[in-house]
Amino acid sequence: MNIVIIGASGYSGAELAQLVAKHPHFVLQGCYVSAGSHDRDKKLSDLYPQHRGLLDMPLQGLTADAIADIGQHVHAVCLCTEHKVSVELAPQFLEQGIKVFDLSGGFRLTDAELYTQYYGFDHPHPELLRQAVYGLAEWHNSAIMDAQLVAVAGCYPTASLNALKPVQQAGLLAPQQKVIINAVSGVTGAGRKANMNTHFCEVSLAPYGVFNHRHTPEVEQALGHPVLFTPHLGNFNRGILATIYAQVNAGTTLTDITDAYQCLADEPLIRLLGAGGLASIKGVAQTPYVDIGWHLQQQQLIISVAIDNLLKGASGQALQCMNINAGLDPTTGLV
Amino acid sequence: MNIVIIGASGYSGAELAQLVAKHPHFVLQGCYVSAGSHDRDKKLSDLYPQHRGLLDMPLQGLTADAIADIGQHVHAVCLCTEHKVSVELAPQFLEQGIKVFDLSGGFRLTDAELYTQYYGFDHPHPELLRQAVYGLAEWHNSAIMDAQLVAVAGCYPTASLNALKPVQQAGLLAPQQKVIINAVSGVTGAGRKANMNTHFCEVSLAPYGVFNHRHTPEVEQALGHPVLFTPHLGNFNRGILATIYAQVNAGTTLTDITDAYQCLADEPLIRLLGAGGLASIKGVAQTPYVDIGWHLQQQQLIISVAIDNLLKGASGQALQCMNINAGLDPTTGLV
Amino acid sequence: MNIVIIGASGYSGAELAQLVAKHPHFVLQGCYVSAGSHDRDKKLSDLYPQHRGLLDMPLQGLTADAIADIGQHVHAVCLCTEHKVSVELAPQFLEQGIKVFDLSGGFRLTDAELYTQYYGFDHPHPELLRQAVYGLAEWHNSAIMDAQLVAVAGCYPTASLNALKPVQQAGLLAPQQKVIINAVSGVTGAGRKANMNTHFCEVSLAPYGVFNHRHTPEVEQALGHPVLFTPHLGNFNRGILATIYAQVNAGTTLTDITDAYQCLADEPLIRLLGAGGLASIKGVAQTPYVDIGWHLQQQQLIISVAIDNLLKGASGQALQCMNINAGLDPTTGLV
Amino acid sequence: MNIVIIGASGYSGAELAQLVAKHPHFVLQGCYVSAGSHDRDKKLSDLYPQHRGLLDMPLQGLTADAIADIGQHVHAVCLCTEHKVSVELAPQFLEQGIKVFDLSGGFRLTDAELYTQYYGFDHPHPELLRQAVYGLAEWHNSAIMDAQLVAVAGCYPTASLNALKPVQQAGLLAPQQKVIINAVSGVTGAGRKANMNTHFCEVSLAPYGVFNHRHTPEVEQALGHPVLFTPHLGNFNRGILATIYAQVNAGTTLTDITDAYQCLADEPLIRLLGAGGLASIKGVAQTPYVDIGWHLQQQQLIISVAIDNLLKGASGQALQCMNINAGLDPTTGLV
Repeated sequence: MNIVIIGASGYSGAELAQLVAKHPHFVLQGCYVSAGSHDRDKKLSDLYPQHRGLLDMPLQGLTADAIADIGQHVHAVCLCTEHKVSVELAPQFLEQGIKVFDLSGGFRLTDAELYTQYYGFDHPHPELLRQAVYGLAEWHNSAIMDAQLVAVAGCYPTASLNALKPVQQAGLLAPQQKVIINAVSGVTGAGRKANMNTHFCEVSLAPYGVFNHRHTPEVEQALGHPVLFTPHLGNFNRGILATIYAQVNAGTTLTDITDAYQCLADEPLIRLLGAGGLASIKGVAQTPYVDIGWHLQQQQLIISVAIDNLLKGASGQALQCMNINAGLDPTTGLV
Repeated sequence: MNIVIIGASGYSGAELAQLVAKHPHFVLQGCYVSAGSHDRDKKLSDLYPQHRGLLDMPLQGLTADAIADIGQHVHAVCLCTEHKVSVELAPQFLEQGIKVFDLSGGFRLTDAELYTQYYGFDHPHPELLRQAVYGLAEWHNSAIMDAQLVAVAGCYPTASLNALKPVQQAGLLAPQQKVIINAVSGVTGAGRKANMNTHFCEVSLAPYGVFNHRHTPEVEQALGHPVLFTPHLGNFNRGILATIYAQVNAGTTLTDITDAYQCLADEPLIRLLGAGGLASIKGVAQTPYVDIGWHLQQQQLIISVAIDNLLKGASGQALQCMNINAGLDPTTGLV
Repeated sequence: MNIVIIGASGYSGAELAQLVAKHPHFVLQGCYVSAGSHDRDKKLSDLYPQHRGLLDMPLQGLTADAIADIGQHVHAVCLCTEHKVSVELAPQFLEQGIKVFDLSGGFRLTDAELYTQYYGFDHPHPELLRQAVYGLAEWHNSAIMDAQLVAVAGCYPTASLNALKPVQQAGLLAPQQKVIINAVSGVTGAGRKANMNTHFCEVSLAPYGVFNHRHTPEVEQALGHPVLFTPHLGNFNRGILATIYAQVNAGTTLTDITDAYQCLADEPLIRLLGAGGLASIKGVAQTPYVDIGWHLQQQQLIISVAIDNLLKGASGQALQCMNINAGLDPTTGLV
Repeated sequence: MNIVIIGASGYSGAELAQLVAKHPHFVLQGCYVSAGSHDRDKKLSDLYPQHRGLLDMPLQGLTADAIADIGQHVHAVCLCTEHKVSVELAPQFLEQGIKVFDLSGGFRLTDAELYTQYYGFDHPHPELLRQAVYGLAEWHNSAIMDAQLVAVAGCYPTASLNALKPVQQAGLLAPQQKVIINAVSGVTGAGRKANMNTHFCEVSLAPYGVFNHRHTPEVEQALGHPVLFTPHLGNFNRGILATIYAQVNAGTTLTDITDAYQCLADEPLIRLLGAGGLASIKGVAQTPYVDIGWHLQQQQLIISVAIDNLLKGASGQALQCMNINAGLDPTTGLV
């Protein structure tokens, strides 16, 4: 199966490129950047010296000709592009019958109005929002299998939802009570574009996006429960750690919680740390796993969850979705 | 005024030693370690090369003779020792009429039974718990002025209490609702003793002490409001960042919150970042300040607060208490 | 092929354990620690949470019974133990007809007296020093193929020798002129044992072992040219970067240098960055490669070389040697 | 004395601003950025939250009017600007009788042609190169005292020259033999401008500027001996560590070396670590000192030296020069 990656110069794009390049059944047909990018025509390994020898292909410019050409030779396109770019590109590939795996947030929300509010633009293709399958791999397996357009889940939502859906689906969450998600992401989550926020000497643990981060509606839509989500930037490259505070119904026991998580017990990329378990960045960095531990005191549930933001939180989960869609073992090329 | 530091080889001890050594009115009379310490007789600057030239004095062993000798030449003793050591040493100095500034948790709690529960030992001198003044400098100024024994506030409590006491005292906190304090500390907070938790390659952002950290009762006692406190270890040397989630009473406005913080507006070591302000580690590391910003959405208050754990969270606040006790400007030697 | 790892709790041991566990042809038969280790009976993944699911086997104590048992079920033993432990263990396995891959320095030097001088003990088995094959994989392929005992090359020597042997073998190095090797290693190179040197807050770029590091005779023996080697500890987890200063013979051109490196051009784990190329830690961390670039000005050659100290500098190269010894492609399980 | 800082938004500018703001005898009259800077009119403490309360003054645009205004109210101007900007600004202030302390390289070299070769522009004011005093504070005290224009020494040269001048002046360096300076700088040395080299996720120990860094002629001019200087970027914020390899004359003893360094023994900002001493980044970061240790084996001298690149390597030394020029103790405001 021939795969093309668009936006391959960024962190999630390059990570996905190396996963596809090493994949036993997929072929990395081409890597693209925007036609005007100053990285155009560079080798991907010039940007990522760790991938010398593996990713020495050029970054091609995504011209109109290139889009047409992709339409003739490719099975699936991975969009590692800005939200606004993805929403314009996806239809052009779908029309040509090519499957699209979008790593941006451009197709994750079903309510088009939320794009105006949280993303700052009117969604140009609201009809695709219903067609898109939300790529939270462990939870939408069969829909992903049949999808033409997969909106790969966001990084924070992937951590949060795998931690919360088991208890939510078991009916344990106290109604009306907002779940508090306090999360910290590594700097790759802020992208490869150089700015003051990503300057080596300026990065320092701090919150951002208080009350208004766009992953809030994404989590609420997929969870069916209100959340208060506060992201932080941490001084490390890769990984997300979330500490989640939820109220459970009166009478809920630790055993109830542990039982609820058994729905994930057989998932190969979920690692249940059990009651008392504590996730950490080092436990998941450079791995495709979700680590989840839980703690209960009276009605207060605390969940500790961690993922690698570029793997399970982006490119790894994209590959997992592509595997599912292709009828392969979901973990092919990941473990 | 002659000052002696006991436990000077640790991070808070050495930090306090350099503050006293540079202080315009205090004299660093001596630095001590336990009689059996393998650092005994080393120069303090051998352990801390950054202080070469300033702290070239030897680390003396705290023998019985040394304790008696201190009693004759010293105005105040600073205990930078383990909790269990502090509770044994403090009375020996108090009996000799020497003021004691204890940086451990040994005298912070008024309820002796909490020591059994949270510190793992029966407090040998419960009578001193009532005598000790809680060294949260901005809030107990007059009591610190007259104190013989100051229990300098803990690091996490210093950040949490300066952030929460203004809104609590203004009567804005919703009763019964636990305040959630999600905090991250730098590795100096874990002490200088080498172990796997502080190994360079093992440190990684992760929670610890879930539901049972000893700073929980310390905050609750000083705040008069229940809290759920979750500490994390972060991959940086110095600093504490806390993101605090509190429910305020219905009808509370952002202006009410901002007004409440005005009680700290003239405090020279408090920096109010205002509504919308976000604290960060880099904003406070190596400084004596508390940075506080706040955010309100309906009844949900989020407070962002940061301190340097060794300065405002330990040695800096100890010096502030000593200044107050000596009738000096509280910031002498700090700014 | 059944493989056993002794000293599996350390950084190189655990790294090798995961390589063997994922290897298509090797079977990780068991992981051992010294009988008195406090890690005994723990799961290896308790120490290394990133390997949960892969390395959940217990760390067994290396008792006399265990050694005898290994002799009956195992093809090869990997020693990730202290030098002094390795030199005692190796003969016990060799006697039982088991191949030994030793990652310590215990069998790297052919001159037994150098052990007294550089390692601080009299070598108990000097007869094995001649039998041992030096495991510098690209350079001793055929000897490794037939070896019973492979002394896997040290981390700094692996970087230095791959950088220098091409120009030395081409006869370009000016005789008598010491080559200066200025190298920086990540903290995993200092081992997992907790001490002040590896404390998170104490690690800071600095030289050590000036004029007397034990890798000096190892490099000189394998290079056949005198070197001045100065190691430094750097504030990062993994990787070695060396900047090497050599005098070449009068008349040597940049083309001569580039030609000399062609002897490595087909080696799959060597990446020649060419004239003007600069190695970096990020280019090699978590990879099995050696990156080499070179620069010439008159007779001054500067070589920039980097490896991951745990992979190419220890466990990766050990696996490479085991592959060669087993008649497999040297890169099996590595790329 | 009224001081103005131009280029105050950068790392050395802001560092100098806080030093001047805290100085007992200097007054920070104003902070300027280029008229077109996007930081214009921001508060300096908006860029540097650690300086909230101290540096809340606005960053003014350096218009023609501002230059004229500075001429009427200011005693000295500190240029923390790009080389090309400094060489244009300095004469405009000198003409108005204002003293200029330039932290760029614009006036450090006496040979104008070296600017064309190493800085990439023809020096517009070669006549000022002879007038400028090289601000290597410990070595040019009396000239600095009388100077109108001080070219504050570069960061790498400050470390290198304090380490090498004692042995050079004692006549111990072997003639003709290039001294090799292998140095690593923290990322603040690369400036505050955001680009891929300073992106948090891209920084990684690596060499740069091989054979052609502009600090090479600066060191050679001030040392009177040829050097081979190789800089590296390290993954830390502040500090420079250099390991220096020099050949000394036959017969030179360790005592000779130690004696040579006694010329610096009374300098308050030089800390001689002695024979066997090893400098480190943590020993000097956030301090105004130069730490120097030395090692001799036969004719091979190794010197280990470290400074904070922003303090002794830039702003601290600038203040030291300003103190000297103003007839104050050189360390005023620094220790």
